[in-house]
Amino acid sequence: MSLLRRLDHVAVVIRDTDEALRYFSGSLGLRVTSSEEIRAPAVRLTYLDTGNAYLQLVEPLDSESAVAHWLEEHGEGVHHICFGVDDVLAAASGLAVGAGAGGDAVPGSGRGRVSSFVPGEPRHGVRIECTEFRHADDVERTPGFLA
Amino acid sequence: MSLLRRLDHVAVVIRDTDEALRYFSGSLGLRVTSSEEIRAPAVRLTYLDTGNAYLQLVEPLDSESAVAHWLEEHGEGVHHICFGVDDVLAAASGLAVGAGAGGDAVPGSGRGRVSSFVPGEPRHGVRIECTEFRHADDVERTPGFLA
Repeated sequence: MSLLRRLDHVAVVIRDTDEALRYFSGSLGLRVTSSEEIRAPAVRLTYLDTGNAYLQLVEPLDSESAVAHWLEEHGEGVHHICFGVDDVLAAASGLAVGAGAGGDAVPGSGRGRVSSFVPGEPRHGVRIECTEFRHADDVERTPGFLA
Repeated sequence: MSLLRRLDHVAVVIRDTDEALRYFSGSLGLRVTSSEEIRAPAVRLTYLDTGNAYLQLVEPLDSESAVAHWLEEHGEGVHHICFGVDDVLAAASGLAVGAGAGGDAVPGSGRGRVSSFVPGEPRHGVRIECTEFRHADDVERTPGFLA
């Protein structure tokens, strides 16, 4: 039994959304389903439909956030993977093995959903985020593949 | 229209499968669906079911392969994402924007399926692999979430 219900998205930090979309949408052919700016952290989040999950493009909009620092140090690439769960805060805390307190939940942090990173250092180099699992939106109304 | 049909797996390179499973299976609660050793490259591949896709653990079994070198340089972490496609070689070549020739296909490289990395340098830091999309196995017989 797992607290995780589904892989919601794979997050890729990029420098410029328009430039990245020339590849991920233009070359790979993935369709953009939403794009929005959020304030904390200051990022543009763009979701592309992979049929059974999303690719999330994350463009830092200032140089202050943790993700902006990550981009400067690491360069573009996969930043985290996010799982849909039933209770975001309980899952993020529960998955933080030995890390103590839970993470800060960010309301409406992508597609209007609450999310929270699992607190503590990434295990095995994989940063994990939890967001709300919504059965109707995530499963019932999607075929699970691209036609 | 995309050559991609579905996100097949997110691949995480790790040093030791048993140790990694204490986290990914023990702590995260993801179920192992298969584990196998392949020869070229020499790796152990272990698949965990996320409900709608797989997490693939990749343990290098010698120090010669590209993925073993990647582990030494980079440390553990997400190595690539793999999409299910209809025609592996055509997709891997077709997605290699300006990279010229196609990649080397590896028969039975995971779950018995042909796969191929998109040749050339990763774009936006994201290494992409293609593998066979099998509608019945990948969609029809799976609910798309963990109960």
